[in-house]
Parts: sequence; C-alpha cells; structure tokens
Amino acid sequence: MNDTPAPFTEEDYANRMTLAAREAAGTGLAGLLITPGPDLVRLCGYRATATERLTLLVLTPGSEPRLLVPALERPDAEAAPGAGAVRISDWRDGQDPYAAATGLLLPNGRYGVCDTTWALHLLGLQEALPLTAYRPLTVVLPMLRAVKDEHEVVRLAAAGAAADAAYEEFLSVRFTGRRETEVAADLARLLREHGHRQVFTSVASGRNSADPQHGTGERTLGKGDTVVLDFGGLKDGYASHTSRTIHVGEPTREERTVHDVVRTAQQAAFDAVAPGVPCRDVDRRARRVIEDAGYGEYAAEPTGHGVGITAHEPPYVTEAEQTPLVPGMCLSIGAGMRLPGRFGVRIADVVTCTADGGQRLTATDHALAIVP
Amino acid sequence: MNDTPAPFTEEDYANRMTLAAREAAGTGLAGLLITPGPDLVRLCGYRATATERLTLLVLTPGSEPRLLVPALERPDAEAAPGAGAVRISDWRDGQDPYAAATGLLLPNGRYGVCDTTWALHLLGLQEALPLTAYRPLTVVLPMLRAVKDEHEVVRLAAAGAAADAAYEEFLSVRFTGRRETEVAADLARLLREHGHRQVFTSVASGRNSADPQHGTGERTLGKGDTVVLDFGGLKDGYASHTSRTIHVGEPTREERTVHDVVRTAQQAAFDAVAPGVPCRDVDRRARRVIEDAGYGEYAAEPTGHGVGITAHEPPYVTEAEQTPLVPGMCLSIGAGMRLPGRFGVRIADVVTCTADGGQRLTATDHALAIVP
Repeated sequence: MNDTPAPFTEEDYANRMTLAAREAAGTGLAGLLITPGPDLVRLCGYRATATERLTLLVLTPGSEPRLLVPALERPDAEAAPGAGAVRISDWRDGQDPYAAATGLLLPNGRYGVCDTTWALHLLGLQEALPLTAYRPLTVVLPMLRAVKDEHEVVRLAAAGAAADAAYEEFLSVRFTGRRETEVAADLARLLREHGHRQVFTSVASGRNSADPQHGTGERTLGKGDTVVLDFGGLKDGYASHTSRTIHVGEPTREERTVHDVVRTAQQAAFDAVAPGVPCRDVDRRARRVIEDAGYGEYAAEPTGHGVGITAHEPPYVTEAEQTPLVPGMCLSIGAGMRLPGRFGVRIADVVTCTADGGQRLTATDHALAIVP
Repeated sequence: MNDTPAPFTEEDYANRMTLAAREAAGTGLAGLLITPGPDLVRLCGYRATATERLTLLVLTPGSEPRLLVPALERPDAEAAPGAGAVRISDWRDGQDPYAAATGLLLPNGRYGVCDTTWALHLLGLQEALPLTAYRPLTVVLPMLRAVKDEHEVVRLAAAGAAADAAYEEFLSVRFTGRRETEVAADLARLLREHGHRQVFTSVASGRNSADPQHGTGERTLGKGDTVVLDFGGLKDGYASHTSRTIHVGEPTREERTVHDVVRTAQQAAFDAVAPGVPCRDVDRRARRVIEDAGYGEYAAEPTGHGVGITAHEPPYVTEAEQTPLVPGMCLSIGAGMRLPGRFGVRIADVVTCTADGGQRLTATDHALAIVP
C-alpha cells in the first residue's frame, strides 16, 4: 500500500530543465532563476532550504543549466539526484554571491524569477546587474509546471491510489456522536499510514457542509448529516486531492437528488477533458448540468485546479481560464452545490489529460456512501 | 514549570513600531516595509503566513503605522494583539494590491524591506512605484531587533529558566551505551515538556566533541567521553540557547584542565558585558584567557550572537563586530576549545546587558558534570 515509486533519473531532470528553458525562450525571457523551493526540487532534485546564503539555478535556453551554491552546501548539491544534469559552481563566505552570479546571467537579460525568492537576493542581483529585469514566474510563466512528464504522472497516480485506500478504510470508522475534528484526525492518520505527508483533511457536516470555506470544526456528527470531505497531501513529493460526500444514516430524497446532480456534473466535466479543450469549457460543462437540473444559483464553486508538487497550482479550471488542456496536465476536476444554511455536496478527483481524454488518478466510488 | 508570561500589550507593540521607525529615520530611510514573518509578529503581533496575497506593514517615521491586508484575512489581522496600534486597510481579490500599497508609500522613498519578502511582492511594488528604492533590512538596519524591551527580556528569561529546568532533569538520564541521537531525543523531550517549541539539540561525544559542526550522530556514548551539548528552542515566541559540556565517568586531568580554561574564559566574557563595550571586546576577553593558558590555537569559535525571537540574530559577538552593547541586548555568550581528533568543550549562556553589566538568563552550574 505504501510502495515507493521509481526515483526520478538524471534524464528526467535534464528534460524538465530543457523544457523549462524552452518555455522561457517562448515568452521572450533570457532565462529562469530558481531559488530553493518546490520548483528547484522539481527541476534538479535539490532540496535546499531558503536562507540568507544565495542558492541559484540558472536556466538559459540553449545552454547548460548552472547551479550556484554556498561552498559549505556544495556536497549536498552534488548529492542531489539531478546534480549530473547541472554544472555546479560555488561561492565562499566572505565572497559576494551576487558578483559570483553575474557570470551566469546576461547583463541586460530579462529573467523569470520564483515568486518566493527572497528580496535580499533579488536586490543583490539587481544591484550587481543594474540592467537586468525580473518578472515573477507565476505572472510570466504560470503554466511552467502544468504539464507533467510521465514519471511525475506515475507519482501522482501513486498518491491518488494511496488516498483511495485511506478513504476506503476511513468509511469504516464511527461517525455518529463524534466531532468533525475527531473524524478528520482519523482520516489524517489513515492518509499518513498510506504514505502521505503534509496532510490536509476537511470534514464539514450538516449545515457546515453548505459552507465551502468551513474546513473542520467542533460540531458533533449525527444521523441525518450530509458530510463533505476534502482531503489529500503529498506522497513522495506529489499531491493527492479528493472530495467525496457521504451521509450519516439514510438521506432524504432531496439530499439524494442533489448528490445525483453533482455526480452527473462531475462526470460531465471529466468527460470534457481532452487535449485542446480550454479549461473554461470543462468548468462550463459541470455548471451546465447543475443549471439544467434547476440548481444554477447553488453552483458557485469553480471546477478545479492543477495538482502536482503542490495540491493547488495552475491551471485553474474556472469560468475565466482559456488555457487549453495538454496531455500531461493533472487536474482536480470537481463539481459542487451548496444550499445555504442547509447542506452541500462536492465530488472531485485528480484527473490526468491523455491523448485519448481524461484518466482518473483517484477512483473510489462516487455513489453516496451511507455511514453509521 | 511551564508558566505563560504576561501577554504583550498594545503599548508594547506601539513602542516597538515607534522605535523601529525612528531607527529607520536615523539611517536615512523613508520607512520600513514588513511582510509576514518574525519581524511582523514582533512589531504588531500579527502571525500571518507569507503567501501570494500581499500583507504589508508600513512604518513611516512620525506617522501612524499602516497595515495592508487581503480583505479575506482582515478579521485575523484585527484580532492580533497589536492591532489597536496600527491602522488597517485591505484589498480585495481582483484589485491590484500594489496599487493599494502606493497610497501608503512615498513615491520616491527609500525603504528597508524584510530579507524574506517575496520577489513577487517586491517586483509588484517596484512596478507600481518605479522611483522607490529598497534595501534589505539585515543590510541597512542589522540591529533592528537587537535591543529588547523589558517585556521581551521577561520572555527570554522564562525561556532560559525552562531550558535550565530541562537540563537539570536531563543530567539524570543514562548516557553510557546509548547513541547520541537517543540522548538528544531525551533532551528534546524535556525541553518540550518545559514549554519549548522548535527545539534544537546537539549532542557531540568523544572525538565528535572536537568538531563544532558535528551536530548529533549515531556514535554510542561510553565511559571516558567528553560530551558537548548545544540546545534550546522557542518558548512563547522567544529563544533559549545554552551550551554545556559534561563527562561520562571520570575525566582525565587534561580534560579537567581544558574545561577549567573554557569556564574561566566564558566567565571573563560575561564579566566584560556592559553598556558601551564593543562586541569584539567581549569576544577578545574570552579568547585572551584561552591564549594565556597556552591553548590559543584551539580557540577558533566566536563568542556568540544575539538571541530573541530567533536563536541566532545580530549582533554577532565576533572578532570583527564593533557594535557597542546597549542595555536590553540579549546575547549568547560562550567560550569553546576544540582539540582536533580528540575532544572539545563549550560553555555558553544567554546574557542580557543591563545598565549594571551582564545578567545571566540561563544559569545552571558550569562545573564539569560527571554523568553515568
């Protein structure tokens, strides 16, 4: 249940860096500057911590990737799984790290830089190279991580399978008479047992399920409650993110009807996933089903978002997003309805776009589970 | 053992912000821009998380502090203990947060900005106000947090007392036959029991004690080992940081001698703490004792560093640091010797500078403890 997927190879990292540099060139950038964080891990496998000491991956289209590190941390950088695909250089305490970086940058280049790069480092680069310009990566290249390679899809599938297994076991816990926080702790424990880290679990019961911002509270669950579950985390560095709606005891006819509409809407969005389809068309398909069933005023939630090394990332599957789907994109595809002050339903799966359409990476039953 | 100190008052926060703005004016800055992190917590009590949504405290000399927050997070900001001392405004999703910030900044001002401020936000401000200039806080105002107010000293004293209590209990654990990691886990548990969070514990035994970079490893402790302990963490948001050296079974005469020299050196550094004394003079006093005892070649370590809302911050008590001590500065004051390949000794306490000289905030016995 907790198998470790095959490690990424030097070639995986080399391909990702080549593709990223090509994307940068496509938007007129001289290159990309990547500091410690998820992008650095994804691109070259180096899990550095962001500190006052400059660590900088420089990707220039058509050139070898370069990684500048503090000399003290060079052995760690050299041990990274993608280290063979970058040329490493270092700077020593007492040296100016920004002067060391100037040799890797065009003196008048326009660079994409991580959103989270420290001001200390950006100001250092701006001072060392006053004619360079910088743009935040999420502004200039929001889709940088959107298309996953096949080995990343394997990780996302493993995370989804683990989340599925945790959810199946979770359905056997007791619900009646326990608080949302207690039930959420059970689900979190199961996700961890199935290899998840940085777990998130939202358990919204009864009228709380009508509030998409509710999270988890101290309400005690009882017979008659609709319960919206939203959960996931990271397994081996890649995210799962599932929504399911369950019911404590027998549901009313209306609760069943609403659940059926949401289930049909989610299926419609899933069926719409195919290369070339704009994100907003996927969103519209789910919304249309709910509108056609006469519940349009309750369909406020967007369909979903990208999933990868984080549980929420571009592209966002919303009414406004025109980005077309591309094979390798992995998305949370969902549908939801919230009847204010009464109850709500949400169903969402991680789906990957393939040449032949969508493929679910989380796949537990969508039928309304009745729990004790 | 785990008393919570009195909460900081609105006046505490107001005073800190006034002082910080005054310091900024003293170095020719138009003001300070503080984003989520330890400085924001210290200055206005607001524990925001750094995200893609701009949260910005603007301190302008002679003006009311201003806090700009995302509208969604306004209730959290208003609940912060220092909220009454700032004027809060917000921006809504869909609005440009940097345009909202322009009303709070001088269009051609030069601002100090947190080292860790995200590039996304700095670039947004630079674009919205092209004639402003920015400097990293640790470069332009390294001593911003160096002088603690009396209520902060109370917190540091409580953290020190808790660390002392943990250490006293720790001396009763078994050492012989256990690994450094096991012993370190005992110390970490005790620190947590005494209210510490973000605990760090280094246990370097035998020849490992000769390496100041060793940290904690898998070596098994045995009779005859010198063991250097370096430990601390945060209690109620303020740090402790202690070093002690203990011995498993009876020490040799040389081990006793080296320990005595280090103890005398640490005492000399402590005795040197007084208002107006440059940091480097304190460092020199410890070093001189070790040199005079004939061990100068083994006295490579700096004496210490500031302690506050982090366990390591300016001023650094080194051979180079000319900053004079000021009442309210709280410092780790230590001395150490490392005999390569053989053994080492380090003793350090948190000390606050008062008008009358140094006062220890950690105060367990400096004699070489013999443990089983």
